[in-house]
Amino acid sequence: MGITLEQAQTAIQAAHQKALDMGVKMNIAVVDAGANLTAFVRMDDAWLGSVDIAIRKAKTARFFDMPTGDLGKASQPGGSLYNIEHSNGGLITFPGGLPIKDSTGRIVGAIGVSGSTVEDDYAVAQAGVEAISGL
Amino acid sequence: MGITLEQAQTAIQAAHQKALDMGVKMNIAVVDAGANLTAFVRMDDAWLGSVDIAIRKAKTARFFDMPTGDLGKASQPGGSLYNIEHSNGGLITFPGGLPIKDSTGRIVGAIGVSGSTVEDDYAVAQAGVEAISGL
Amino acid sequence: MGITLEQAQTAIQAAHQKALDMGVKMNIAVVDAGANLTAFVRMDDAWLGSVDIAIRKAKTARFFDMPTGDLGKASQPGGSLYNIEHSNGGLITFPGGLPIKDSTGRIVGAIGVSGSTVEDDYAVAQAGVEAISGL
Amino acid sequence: MGITLEQAQTAIQAAHQKALDMGVKMNIAVVDAGANLTAFVRMDDAWLGSVDIAIRKAKTARFFDMPTGDLGKASQPGGSLYNIEHSNGGLITFPGGLPIKDSTGRIVGAIGVSGSTVEDDYAVAQAGVEAISGL
Repeated sequence: MGITLEQAQTAIQAAHQKALDMGVKMNIAVVDAGANLTAFVRMDDAWLGSVDIAIRKAKTARFFDMPTGDLGKASQPGGSLYNIEHSNGGLITFPGGLPIKDSTGRIVGAIGVSGSTVEDDYAVAQAGVEAISGL
Repeated sequence: MGITLEQAQTAIQAAHQKALDMGVKMNIAVVDAGANLTAFVRMDDAWLGSVDIAIRKAKTARFFDMPTGDLGKASQPGGSLYNIEHSNGGLITFPGGLPIKDSTGRIVGAIGVSGSTVEDDYAVAQAGVEAISGL
Repeated sequence: MGITLEQAQTAIQAAHQKALDMGVKMNIAVVDAGANLTAFVRMDDAWLGSVDIAIRKAKTARFFDMPTGDLGKASQPGGSLYNIEHSNGGLITFPGGLPIKDSTGRIVGAIGVSGSTVEDDYAVAQAGVEAISGL
Repeated sequence: MGITLEQAQTAIQAAHQKALDMGVKMNIAVVDAGANLTAFVRMDDAWLGSVDIAIRKAKTARFFDMPTGDLGKASQPGGSLYNIEHSNGGLITFPGGLPIKDSTGRIVGAIGVSGSTVEDDYAVAQAGVEAISGL
């Protein structure tokens, strides 16, 4: 459904390489169009708590077809989606989760990265997306 | 208990039509007086993460017999019901969930809508309520 | 993804009619190819506990692309899949859940029915499948 | 802790190749010495319900430092570990989960495979273990 394992592995490999280049230790997850886990890697000594966060970021990005950070902007106190994180067994709404589109613009899956600052997480996720962009 | 399946389906059909008119893709749930799911539809390509949110909005509206947005006003930091979302396995307290009343004013169920802005969600839920109002 | 809402509603309507003909009160759920809920109805006075069972039967049938009863035969004490029900947040492995295929034989979703004997549940699910078989 | 990502990926690659050779579609998970997910792949069109089962098999094998099938023999009705599956948020105790040892015999992680018969699952898991045996 949507992304293939080969595409998911290409995205993860590119994200992994980006993390190595940046000197950060990441958990990297890819889900398919149905928000089901397709591939995952945890780099040596990456935060254990980030296993779950990387997977939830990928799922959250596919659940709402947008970058997780966009959702987080609206879920702050006083925001229109305050505490949306209580749905779906727990969402993660800070940056590091991104939808993955095919060449027609259709969303075929999502990637989630966790293990460093949210800026780093986002940059590594972005590298994964770019590696298979438009496939 | 309370709302019948026929009434629930009438509400969902009206909400569905309203969503089509507005050009939005919604998840629409109706629960009965016992806050148990009675009917549900997900429009094609509506957000997957909104399945759970639509159902939780309907339940939340019946749990406390008020629009979900009203509850959200009191659950903000410093508010009297701060973080009430942690109860009942997870509440959703932004707009889009509304109680449904019979002709005597008794609450017989609730509707929850999720898939667009909270303003759109509310408008679609309202269309569902109006379709069976006072039945 | 896979089944459309229109197809899901056709399946549910046929299953609902079958239940009326049989004089039984059912919960009927349809999930898509990603095992996400697409449509649901609970007939008036149908068992409340069967809301969850109908949904789990539909998900289980798609999780393993087979009738739920087939899985149940292998999950008995001494069987090769003993206690598989502990996975995926809880499976239901007795009859009443069936995969739905398109005209090419590809599985596009599943239906789950609960509210009577497993024989009745199966018959009602089967009526739903047949209504959209090969679409 | 224990197994490295490189070793985990070697094990998964070997298991993946074995599955291709056998013509089966598998979910393959590796956990480290702390029973935390290290790497995972789902082959295209592998059962969605086996994502969770593959991960639970790997965790179960490390939780008790034995093949999952061995635990399952003792968890049958009347057995000494009857219904142990209720612990740890849900165990899977049929074959397909195996501990992974280093060259000193110390357990450094585990592999879990799900997607076909338990005999196939076991054979694919065994191929993964052998690929890094004694590293």
